[in-house]
Amino acid sequence: MMLSTRENVHQKLDWLATFSESTLGVTRLLYSKAWKDAREALIAYMKSLGFSVYEDAAGNVFGRIQGETDDVILTGSHLDTVKNGGKYDGAYGVLAGIHAVYHTWKTYGTPYKTLEAAIFCEEEGSRFKTAYIGSRYIVGDASEEDFSAEDAAGHSVNQAREALGLTASLSFTGRSDIERFIELHIEQGQQLEQSGDHLGIVKAIVGQQRFTYQISGSANHAGTTPMNMRRDALEAAALMITAINRLTKEAGDPFVATVGTIEAAPGSVNVIPGEVTFTLDVRHPEDEKLTAHVLQLEKACVAIADEHNVKLDVQRFVTIEAVPMDEQMVNDLHEICEQEQLTHKLMYSGAGHDAQVVGRSVPAAMLFVPSRHGLSHHPDEYTEPQYLENGIAILEKALSSWAWKEK
Amino acid sequence: MMLSTRENVHQKLDWLATFSESTLGVTRLLYSKAWKDAREALIAYMKSLGFSVYEDAAGNVFGRIQGETDDVILTGSHLDTVKNGGKYDGAYGVLAGIHAVYHTWKTYGTPYKTLEAAIFCEEEGSRFKTAYIGSRYIVGDASEEDFSAEDAAGHSVNQAREALGLTASLSFTGRSDIERFIELHIEQGQQLEQSGDHLGIVKAIVGQQRFTYQISGSANHAGTTPMNMRRDALEAAALMITAINRLTKEAGDPFVATVGTIEAAPGSVNVIPGEVTFTLDVRHPEDEKLTAHVLQLEKACVAIADEHNVKLDVQRFVTIEAVPMDEQMVNDLHEICEQEQLTHKLMYSGAGHDAQVVGRSVPAAMLFVPSRHGLSHHPDEYTEPQYLENGIAILEKALSSWAWKEK
Repeated sequence: MMLSTRENVHQKLDWLATFSESTLGVTRLLYSKAWKDAREALIAYMKSLGFSVYEDAAGNVFGRIQGETDDVILTGSHLDTVKNGGKYDGAYGVLAGIHAVYHTWKTYGTPYKTLEAAIFCEEEGSRFKTAYIGSRYIVGDASEEDFSAEDAAGHSVNQAREALGLTASLSFTGRSDIERFIELHIEQGQQLEQSGDHLGIVKAIVGQQRFTYQISGSANHAGTTPMNMRRDALEAAALMITAINRLTKEAGDPFVATVGTIEAAPGSVNVIPGEVTFTLDVRHPEDEKLTAHVLQLEKACVAIADEHNVKLDVQRFVTIEAVPMDEQMVNDLHEICEQEQLTHKLMYSGAGHDAQVVGRSVPAAMLFVPSRHGLSHHPDEYTEPQYLENGIAILEKALSSWAWKEK
Repeated sequence: MMLSTRENVHQKLDWLATFSESTLGVTRLLYSKAWKDAREALIAYMKSLGFSVYEDAAGNVFGRIQGETDDVILTGSHLDTVKNGGKYDGAYGVLAGIHAVYHTWKTYGTPYKTLEAAIFCEEEGSRFKTAYIGSRYIVGDASEEDFSAEDAAGHSVNQAREALGLTASLSFTGRSDIERFIELHIEQGQQLEQSGDHLGIVKAIVGQQRFTYQISGSANHAGTTPMNMRRDALEAAALMITAINRLTKEAGDPFVATVGTIEAAPGSVNVIPGEVTFTLDVRHPEDEKLTAHVLQLEKACVAIADEHNVKLDVQRFVTIEAVPMDEQMVNDLHEICEQEQLTHKLMYSGAGHDAQVVGRSVPAAMLFVPSRHGLSHHPDEYTEPQYLENGIAILEKALSSWAWKEK
């Protein structure tokens, strides 16, 4: 049995990255073969470490160390990635959780509360038009609708799930045994790199809303349709994207808005696009301000559509509320960092995380380690091994303090 | 044997439209199965009418009625379509050519000059990054480079050609036996519909240039990258597309510029696009003005790229010079229309055509019939049967006048 040590976590990340659909970076979309193979390898790994391993119908996996009570202290992150993502996003929290639970158990023996290392099946929303299915499923915040969401090929979440042999019946009631949750993750921004701190303790995670903007004009010949007689869906889309960026810059930090995908049909060099669809992702740590901004963007785009005689249909497909982390857990992490003499910073998370979903139902906390150049969702993601180890050291201390303190 | 009549051309167009890769409209990309099947069906049809049929290495097909001399009066159009195009673009000229040659022969017997109905293999440039391969091949204006151009899947023209069994050696010297060429086509604009004329006689065809604009920024996380620290390739592309449309409107008719395709990578909802590629198609009947405008557009886009800290690479992949039609042939067509009492209009063609390519080497002419709402490159293309028949009637008269007048 290969021993899990804090020091070899970067090697384990390299190993986990080999499970990928792409050669450029890591691509592990939900219910893909790479995803399935990675999950099975991690199940085998946890079993070899002595965990009791079980899964739920969505495909989440839990490595359990039974305590004297059934109250669960849960830690972990997600296994899926964006297309051509990096080795660390999600994967680090998964491996850190396994490692920290294992070492806490080996160091202190049977805990008072039960410890579980979680591998969430999906967080990124990169394949299907829904996101955070894994963590939402365990807290009873997922629905049939999520499992009906389709990918670009028209396959639903449920079809893809069953095609992979995950045929257990779905139940949307959620778990009631989780006492608290902590997630370790790379920062995905440059705040820690710029401040030089070892760790970030998250005080709140931004809310986010995602939309599909669908513009319908009229496809026509590129040579014989005068400029002033066109109903060019891409011309309108370009003006909308420009307006979205301008208005969001004017609104100022921490507002962010991103158009990440765009498709123009019919998609020929010599045909005016009649249909354009793009996605919009908007974030802010205060839900009211976020919603007001989102409405302002839509209003501006409706005006552009009217002016250009095209039709605009806006559909929201993801709403994640801003979530404050648990105050007591934040204080505990602060004290542990002080004891361990690791510099740290209280901060917001501009990225969504499983801790945000779980944190709406049970006390939750998040720890960040620095990420070089703030890169994430990118093949060049990198965190120095020492930073990876620091994060796990703090996670181990936190788990031991929470799982044993009531004894 | 099914007799070819002027009156059943709309039924033959419906029949030819059944050879399609798509159910929405007609999709017959070069060297696709639908293209191959349509071509073989037309070869069988021409043989059944008594034509001597032969093909060249590119895949062009010619139905020949041998005259007393080998000088060829050529008529026809192209078999390929855009994605989800209509039943008439190209196909009408192909069937009209077959019909008119057949009936002229049946009416007047063996001609003095040889008549040929041409089926050009490719005109649209919808699959590969090159266009007009068919007509350029016959006049010696194609090259190895054209046959190395790739489609979206990375297959070259030549690979696709050979995969279909067209394995004859290519020769780029062109034919020297063509005396003149005439092409019948739907207008693809609204000038005839608005003027109420039966026919358009083309005096010149616009020049066109096509480009790939490739923008390289930096892919990054949609939530953790502040707006002012982004190198968003799609934000820059949207500004470029807006500038292209604005500058072209300012330049005024008959300038047209179209961005017909756009792709953003990596293409995830929650990732800032690091790479965007779009195509640009620009047209004008005067080559000098066209080139000046194209340079102005590129200059404006370079300035946008610089301002947004992204890299812009512009590659021109199609250059078609503006071409005047043969003055004598234009006069002949005018006189025939007068004799037949069909109202007609002298006009420019904003669309590129095979007649433009052939017209650089030999005298060429074009006839337009009205197209409902000016629609083309669209599933809803439609021309009334009476207009289709009018066009063929004039083509028959023209062929008989040119193929027999020297006798």
